[in-house]
Amino acid sequence: MPLFHDGLTVHTQSHDYPIVITENTAIDNNSMAKQVAPYISGRQVLIVTNETVAPLYLSALEEALTEQFTVRVCVLPDGEQYKNQASINQIYDALMADHFNRDVTLIALGGGVIGDMTGFAAASFMRGVNFIQIPTTLLSQVDSSVGGKTGINHPQGKNMIGAFWQPQMVLADMSTLKTLPARELSAGLAEVIKYALIMDEAFLTWLEENLPAMMALDLAVLGEAVKRCCQYKADVVAQDERESGVRALLNFGHTFGHVIETHQGYGNWLHGEAVAAGMLQAAELSQKIGWLTVEEVARIKRILTLANLPTTAPPIDTQTALNLMGHDKKVKQGQIRLILLKSLGKAVLTDDFDAQLLTEVLSQQSV
Amino acid sequence: MPLFHDGLTVHTQSHDYPIVITENTAIDNNSMAKQVAPYISGRQVLIVTNETVAPLYLSALEEALTEQFTVRVCVLPDGEQYKNQASINQIYDALMADHFNRDVTLIALGGGVIGDMTGFAAASFMRGVNFIQIPTTLLSQVDSSVGGKTGINHPQGKNMIGAFWQPQMVLADMSTLKTLPARELSAGLAEVIKYALIMDEAFLTWLEENLPAMMALDLAVLGEAVKRCCQYKADVVAQDERESGVRALLNFGHTFGHVIETHQGYGNWLHGEAVAAGMLQAAELSQKIGWLTVEEVARIKRILTLANLPTTAPPIDTQTALNLMGHDKKVKQGQIRLILLKSLGKAVLTDDFDAQLLTEVLSQQSV
Repeated sequence: MPLFHDGLTVHTQSHDYPIVITENTAIDNNSMAKQVAPYISGRQVLIVTNETVAPLYLSALEEALTEQFTVRVCVLPDGEQYKNQASINQIYDALMADHFNRDVTLIALGGGVIGDMTGFAAASFMRGVNFIQIPTTLLSQVDSSVGGKTGINHPQGKNMIGAFWQPQMVLADMSTLKTLPARELSAGLAEVIKYALIMDEAFLTWLEENLPAMMALDLAVLGEAVKRCCQYKADVVAQDERESGVRALLNFGHTFGHVIETHQGYGNWLHGEAVAAGMLQAAELSQKIGWLTVEEVARIKRILTLANLPTTAPPIDTQTALNLMGHDKKVKQGQIRLILLKSLGKAVLTDDFDAQLLTEVLSQQSV
Repeated sequence: MPLFHDGLTVHTQSHDYPIVITENTAIDNNSMAKQVAPYISGRQVLIVTNETVAPLYLSALEEALTEQFTVRVCVLPDGEQYKNQASINQIYDALMADHFNRDVTLIALGGGVIGDMTGFAAASFMRGVNFIQIPTTLLSQVDSSVGGKTGINHPQGKNMIGAFWQPQMVLADMSTLKTLPARELSAGLAEVIKYALIMDEAFLTWLEENLPAMMALDLAVLGEAVKRCCQYKADVVAQDERESGVRALLNFGHTFGHVIETHQGYGNWLHGEAVAAGMLQAAELSQKIGWLTVEEVARIKRILTLANLPTTAPPIDTQTALNLMGHDKKVKQGQIRLILLKSLGKAVLTDDFDAQLLTEVLSQQSV
């Protein structure tokens, strides 16, 4: 029997939905389907997945659902570089090919890229249909599958096209992490560490103790960490679904990280790796302003290193980096705003800093 | 001084917004800008228009807004055949080229195609930014600019991709109808007649008296008709924004009409023309079921003819038509549902009809 962790409920303007955190549904043929079936309201299902995840978990899910539903599959290439309009069009084409209609439920089986694209396709097909998230990476379990941000990249900027669209449920099965490459597990840990840095110093201490167990794939410890992160995020999303305020804090490290990802080309640095290096840049700026001590920045660097994450951004010309920041969604009327740490466990969105200090932080990694 | 008709307010889940029905703001340089400026919250404006409307109304609006805002323009080709992803990408590219951000307001200056595409671009750029509708055709003034349906066509189906996204305000200037080709004025009248058929027989009588004045461009009578139609639609949208119930009735004639448009290729039949022929097909089916009399169908045909609208669908193979109907968003679990008339002024969404009668109606125009 699988060990079921407690789940939780996300409250949003459109509807409430559950996050079920569990184990071993992915390898027991029927149990993953049993978990999601109650949340499928029509008779049509399109499973969207990628070439990496499909051989692992697709056939069991597809077969079990086929007993109750008309099931079709759309397998996309794997990678952030495919998070684009062409992939969305493949999903639309699959939906149109089978005359699927407003009753269809899309199921995202994969990581954050699959989840974001499937969610945006669900948001925009026939002006909105249902979808379910089955995140199979740590990153998507703790971050992208919760809160309804969906979207794709524009050639000039990450996540520039998208919608807020909430799933009917999220099924996070810890055992899928057993097939996740170690580098991607680390990338997911970057977002886990992020919650600690912006919201809860006690969780940072917990992580300093438990990170080795998580990296050794102790599913119970992973489940506990995922549950905590989802609860942090659900609380924030309930307060500020459309990111007009507090939700922006979840993007800690992301403005710096987006510069790295955009400059290096999508897919070369993993999102979580770019966020890790970006969080340390944000922490360094916080320290230069006088909010963090040198020791606290070192503590952040230590836990990132423990998680096998990069702590140094690649060389990017400072002016190029500033220009790339100009495309970030958090720019308000021309002034760059950043999420910085007032202290460990407390983030703020601010434009109240000396631009020279930002330049210094960026130029530390500059050519 | 322009004659201002009364405006009205649309109530939606996200926010309330005004529809201002007026005259002569489009030719007085500053007054159109004065009307919309209070609804622009940031400093950035992208005006989206097409090659036909741009020479008529763009420069006055652009110049006047430039005094207060950073204004950019995206001029798209004119026509339903350009209501596609490529045009949406042009809008995204224009927004990205100038580093526009979440503060931007998009202004749709044109007919329904421009309004639908600009609305969808606004719904999906950075997961949603503000937009304003300045509809310059009768069709868009009475229909597509009210209620927040936005979207584009998929090669296999009309309006298959889109979102519900409400504008900040709608400015309907009757004097823009002076530059509208007569054929397009008639196409707009199809939607005006639609409101009478589905909601208010007394309005049908009013139209039988006033249609000649409207076609002679009596702006006061046109303004009265637009106001009534917007009020009908605003009432329906307030009840059922996301079309789970009563709002579907506004699609009277559209399922049949979509078959015509899709089969003939977008842009050959105007949307209103297809709806006109489609409404008569729906009325004929209603008569075969026994809900309308032969005389009532003749009355519908008469007013459509008075408005210079087609009353006969082009020859389309019956099975092809049925297949095309299978792609319509109103299909629920495989069964074709249609909006039919229980009586003049009262529409219902139903699948409770003999499929043979539908085939008879379709085959009347069949090869």
